Amino acid sequence: MLTLDKIYHAKYVLKQVIRETDVIHAPKINPESNIWLKTENLQITGSFKVRGAYYKMSCLSEEEKAKGVIACSAGNHAQGVALAAAKNGIRSIICLPDGAPISKVEATKSYGAEVCLVKGVYDDAYNEALRQRDEHGYTFVHPFDDENVIAGQGTIGLELIEQIPDMDAVIVPVGGGGLISGVAYAVKSLNPKIKIYGVQATGAPSMYNSVRDGHIEQLDSVSTIADGIAVKEPGENTYKLVSDYVDEIVTVTDDEISAAILALMEQQKLVTEGAGAVPVAAAMFNKVPIKGKKTVCLLSGGNIDVTILSRVIKRGLLMTGRNSTLNIELIDKPGQLMDVSRIIAELGGNVISIHHERANEGSAVNGCYLRIVLETRNYAHIEEIKDALKSNGFKITGD
Amino acid sequence: MLTLDKIYHAKYVLKQVIRETDVIHAPKINPESNIWLKTENLQITGSFKVRGAYYKMSCLSEEEKAKGVIACSAGNHAQGVALAAAKNGIRSIICLPDGAPISKVEATKSYGAEVCLVKGVYDDAYNEALRQRDEHGYTFVHPFDDENVIAGQGTIGLELIEQIPDMDAVIVPVGGGGLISGVAYAVKSLNPKIKIYGVQATGAPSMYNSVRDGHIEQLDSVSTIADGIAVKEPGENTYKLVSDYVDEIVTVTDDEISAAILALMEQQKLVTEGAGAVPVAAAMFNKVPIKGKKTVCLLSGGNIDVTILSRVIKRGLLMTGRNSTLNIELIDKPGQLMDVSRIIAELGGNVISIHHERANEGSAVNGCYLRIVLETRNYAHIEEIKDALKSNGFKITGD
Repeated sequence: MLTLDKIYHAKYVLKQVIRETDVIHAPKINPESNIWLKTENLQITGSFKVRGAYYKMSCLSEEEKAKGVIACSAGNHAQGVALAAAKNGIRSIICLPDGAPISKVEATKSYGAEVCLVKGVYDDAYNEALRQRDEHGYTFVHPFDDENVIAGQGTIGLELIEQIPDMDAVIVPVGGGGLISGVAYAVKSLNPKIKIYGVQATGAPSMYNSVRDGHIEQLDSVSTIADGIAVKEPGENTYKLVSDYVDEIVTVTDDEISAAILALMEQQKLVTEGAGAVPVAAAMFNKVPIKGKKTVCLLSGGNIDVTILSRVIKRGLLMTGRNSTLNIELIDKPGQLMDVSRIIAELGGNVISIHHERANEGSAVNGCYLRIVLETRNYAHIEEIKDALKSNGFKITGD
Repeated sequence: MLTLDKIYHAKYVLKQVIRETDVIHAPKINPESNIWLKTENLQITGSFKVRGAYYKMSCLSEEEKAKGVIACSAGNHAQGVALAAAKNGIRSIICLPDGAPISKVEATKSYGAEVCLVKGVYDDAYNEALRQRDEHGYTFVHPFDDENVIAGQGTIGLELIEQIPDMDAVIVPVGGGGLISGVAYAVKSLNPKIKIYGVQATGAPSMYNSVRDGHIEQLDSVSTIADGIAVKEPGENTYKLVSDYVDEIVTVTDDEISAAILALMEQQKLVTEGAGAVPVAAAMFNKVPIKGKKTVCLLSGGNIDVTILSRVIKRGLLMTGRNSTLNIELIDKPGQLMDVSRIIAELGGNVISIHHERANEGSAVNGCYLRIVLETRNYAHIEEIKDALKSNGFKITGD
């Protein structure tokens, strides 16, 4: 049974281990609201997960501690468990599917866990973890459906009540529901007037569907950039707590999440992973009723692969007209490339790459095809450049 | 005359306006040291500059306030002055060279300043600002060589002494020297044992040269990714304060700065601009004697253009073997592309783009040329893929 006492106890236990992360004002995210960011992406291990994992382990008996813990995760939970175990002097084993990215495996090892690579997918690794638990007597640390884990995550709610006592609403990412269960329970127990909104990815709406339909449902598959909340089925505890304490659950698309990640980088200088950015996506795209409200977006984590981040930036630049590709047909005679370059340069476009090729299918036999990737200021700037090229007699294809 | 009293007064004045930014542990930046980050990139306006600008304005007489202030900057100083003026109810004019990026102009306007675009380069805008000062009686807000501005920046030193009282060293970016002057004066006045190190870009070593040679020197030109510290000449006040209170000045290259920006994003989830990352570059590449020392890196700002950030990430990925381009010569017969694709896929390489072309110069007439851009894990992974391609009979050019 989750109690406020337990969450206060978790706060006391965690005090020496975790950071009380800052809350930062973010006035530009949604100018009609009053947005603040709880920066759990700046938590040790780069995610809130260490809170629940550490508190869970601190509650084990000496005998359980001596035997060790096991978990199954390729993400933030693995790192949280590994670090929490190391700090408690407990042995930890993390089961991972053998296709897991090397970077995740290395990160988990670096926090002190033993990594067990299991042939197959996540479910195979999960079953292997349960098998080893039964064989060796390890304690299995569930990523979300565990009362002590939920109590650990709930400490964020206590911090928020102290840091922003007059907040009207908190927006929280939802995967399995451990984070929002703890936060909602803590916040609502102290002040039921504060609204709690949950956010899932449209490609993984397991809690959204389950709450809507009034019973736990399992998704066949999940697909989203926000891998940290790509969960097929809510837990029993979390489903009940979310049903009882959360005001509304909404969903956001991968494009909206990408825009939120980019906005947090540009406006707030913060790196967030997909799951960490969904509350900001919900706030930016008006998915929740926060107009005129003092609202906290809980940035749950920042562990995004930098190659994915690079793609998110690229997509964000495209979406805001700051990067564009022009396909231009040229007559194959000298000086054409120079003319195009001059026109673009005069208008302040910055050429990133040029691909120049003769006589493709779809162009006249004596024609050339020129693909230019440009840095531009915005959509108007792109149009300005296109118009200038057209008025100089160039044909822009796909326009 | 700069005094500790003045810096304490600045702290009192700034208390209601600025954030006391967090100090965050960064154990992986340099494992032989004990690194902490002062996150002024998370300051309002994304930079420390608002501290000096605000304190300077708060010290003006009512008559001066009524006339307004003027400054010349395309960067953080402009935004700091604009916001500080708005909060003080003072009119502000910012002179910018007319080639300044639209994004900087818009950012400056968004904080409430009037922008005056001046034909020419920075020096022209600077002269125009002085001319308008003389004509209209505006107060000119110097970006660094001003005692009150320096006192405002010095408040960071007071915060550090409270936040990390047992620190051994502070590493500070150096452009004109306003930031390090204030921080060094405050810290050394309270505890002379704490070392203060300054960092410049190798492409803009004005203070480095001046201190080395014992007199103020002017650079003919500056060139660095760290535009926030690309200053041609130190100020008179700052040169004297740096000479008296700073233990050592070192320089870092643009590649080292890029690596630091990337490390801060990946390990600490923080976005920094070039100037903001130079202390971390100095710590990562052992430019300063901090082995075994508790060391604070002052991240001065985070206002980096996202297109530049995108390039920094790209370069960082290349430098760490996580992105690579292979040029492969194929015999022009069916199935070759499929074979290459299969070999790469089996080894876990992730194809980003393929460019496939026949009969280029330098390849046999019946040959094909294939350029593949790949996401890879590290240099060893790239070699593994290359070896597999070679042992299957493919020729990799430029290798």
